[in-house]
Amino acid sequence: MSPLTITGLRGVPFVKAGDDLGAITIAAYAETGLQPEDGDVLIVAQKIVSKAEDRIVNVSTVEPSEQAIALAAEVEKDARLVEVVLSESRRIVRHRPNLLIAEHRLGYVMANAGIDHSNVAPADGVDRVLLLPVDPDGSAEALRATLAKRSGRRIAVIISDSFGRPFRRGTVGIALGAAGLPAVIDWRGHPDLFGRTLEVTETGFADEIAAAASLVQGQADEATPIVLVRGLSWSAPDAPASELVRPAEHDLFR
Amino acid sequence: MSPLTITGLRGVPFVKAGDDLGAITIAAYAETGLQPEDGDVLIVAQKIVSKAEDRIVNVSTVEPSEQAIALAAEVEKDARLVEVVLSESRRIVRHRPNLLIAEHRLGYVMANAGIDHSNVAPADGVDRVLLLPVDPDGSAEALRATLAKRSGRRIAVIISDSFGRPFRRGTVGIALGAAGLPAVIDWRGHPDLFGRTLEVTETGFADEIAAAASLVQGQADEATPIVLVRGLSWSAPDAPASELVRPAEHDLFR
Repeated sequence: MSPLTITGLRGVPFVKAGDDLGAITIAAYAETGLQPEDGDVLIVAQKIVSKAEDRIVNVSTVEPSEQAIALAAEVEKDARLVEVVLSESRRIVRHRPNLLIAEHRLGYVMANAGIDHSNVAPADGVDRVLLLPVDPDGSAEALRATLAKRSGRRIAVIISDSFGRPFRRGTVGIALGAAGLPAVIDWRGHPDLFGRTLEVTETGFADEIAAAASLVQGQADEATPIVLVRGLSWSAPDAPASELVRPAEHDLFR
Repeated sequence: MSPLTITGLRGVPFVKAGDDLGAITIAAYAETGLQPEDGDVLIVAQKIVSKAEDRIVNVSTVEPSEQAIALAAEVEKDARLVEVVLSESRRIVRHRPNLLIAEHRLGYVMANAGIDHSNVAPADGVDRVLLLPVDPDGSAEALRATLAKRSGRRIAVIISDSFGRPFRRGTVGIALGAAGLPAVIDWRGHPDLFGRTLEVTETGFADEIAAAASLVQGQADEATPIVLVRGLSWSAPDAPASELVRPAEHDLFR
C-alpha cells in the first residue's frame, strides 16, 4: 500500500467576500507543482469559506437583546457577541465565565456557535466576527462540482473547523461539510479477523481526515488553509458531514 | 514544506503475550523498505500493546458482583463482562441498553472502559477480552526508549485507540499514550495573522496524529497496527497523553 500524503497547498491568497474558491484551489495546485488527480481529498478551512461567502458580521452594528445582555454578564463576554451567538444557535448547552457552548442551528455543539474573531482583519478599529457557512455541506458540494468541471477530476471536498471536546483537552480538526466521500463509514456486519462482528460500528471518516489535515493547516499561519490528502480509498457510499452530527435524541450528553 | 506521509508498516505479526514490540517495529521498518529517521512518529494500536502486555482476561473465570449483575441486566450485557468493566473503572458515566460508558481508572471516558473482544483469538471456545495497557504513557515511553537504543534515532511513539464521542457519530482515533512529543500543544500567547491573540488555546496534537493514523490502520485488518507518520515538526515541550484527559473538575459534561 502506498503511503498517504498530506500536503498544504501553496499560494492561497487572503480570501475576500465573493472570491472564487474553485479558481483559488486550481491555482494553488499549480503553485504547489501538482495536478488534480482522481481520488484527491481537499480539506478547506472553514474560515476561508466563510470569508468567500461574506459571513462577516460587524459587531458594532448589533443590538443585544435582554437575554444576550443577561447571558453576557454571566459568561463575561461582549453582549453584542453573545447576541450573534444566540442568533446562530438553537440553544445554549453549557456556560460559565469565559465559556459559552451552544448548539448551532445545524446541530454542532461548539464554543460560541463557531463564531470566531481571530484572523479576521479589523476594519477601522471595528470588531468583526466570522460566522460558519450557511450550509457547509452545500458549500463543499459546490466546490466539488466546480473542481470536477474545471479539472475533469473526481475530487472530494471537506470543510474543516477545530472543535473542543468533552472529556479531553485540546481542539481537533473536524468536518463541518463534506462532498464526494462518506463522512461516516458504517462497518456493521463486517467481521473481525476471527469472523466475529466488529465492535466499532461507525467511523468518523471525514473527521479523521480533517484532524489529519489540521496537522498541516496549523493555527496561526493562514497560508495553508487548503490541504490535499492523497492516497485514501473507500468503498462506502458518499454521505454529507451532517451525518456526523448525532441527533440530540440519541445523545446522552446534551 | 514537504508533505506529511502516513505509512502502514508491513509484516507486523500477530502479537502474543511477552512479544518484544521494539524488535517487531524494527523488523516492520525493514519489511516496509524504510530506515528509522529522527523525527519519525510511530502510532501503535492499543490492541497489540495490550496483547504484548498480556492484558487478556478469560471472561469465564470472572465472578460477577451483585452490582455487576444488576447493571448487566440494565445494559443487557454479560454480567461477567460488566464486572471486568467495573474493575477497570472509577465509575459509570452513562448507561442504557446496549451502551455502557465508563470513566476508566486513568480518566478516559469511553465505552466499556475500553474493553474489547473483537480481534482477540477465541481459545477453546472461551470468551476472552482485552483490557487497556496498565500505563499507556509508560508503555509508549518504554517503546520509545527501546527504539532509541536499537536504532540510534529520535522516534516518538503514540499508543492509539478509537473513541466514540458525545455530539458526533462515528469513532475517531485518539492517543491513549504518548512519548517523545507534545500530546497537547499550548498556543496561548501566540498572535494570529493580525496580531490578536488566538482563540484556540490548546490543540490535541497526539489525538490528531492518532486520527490520521487511523485512516491507515483500518478496522478489520490487523495487518497494519503500526503506522509511521513522517514529516511532522513541533516546538512545544514533550507532554504525555495523560495531559489529554480533561480533569473531571474542569469538565462540564461528566
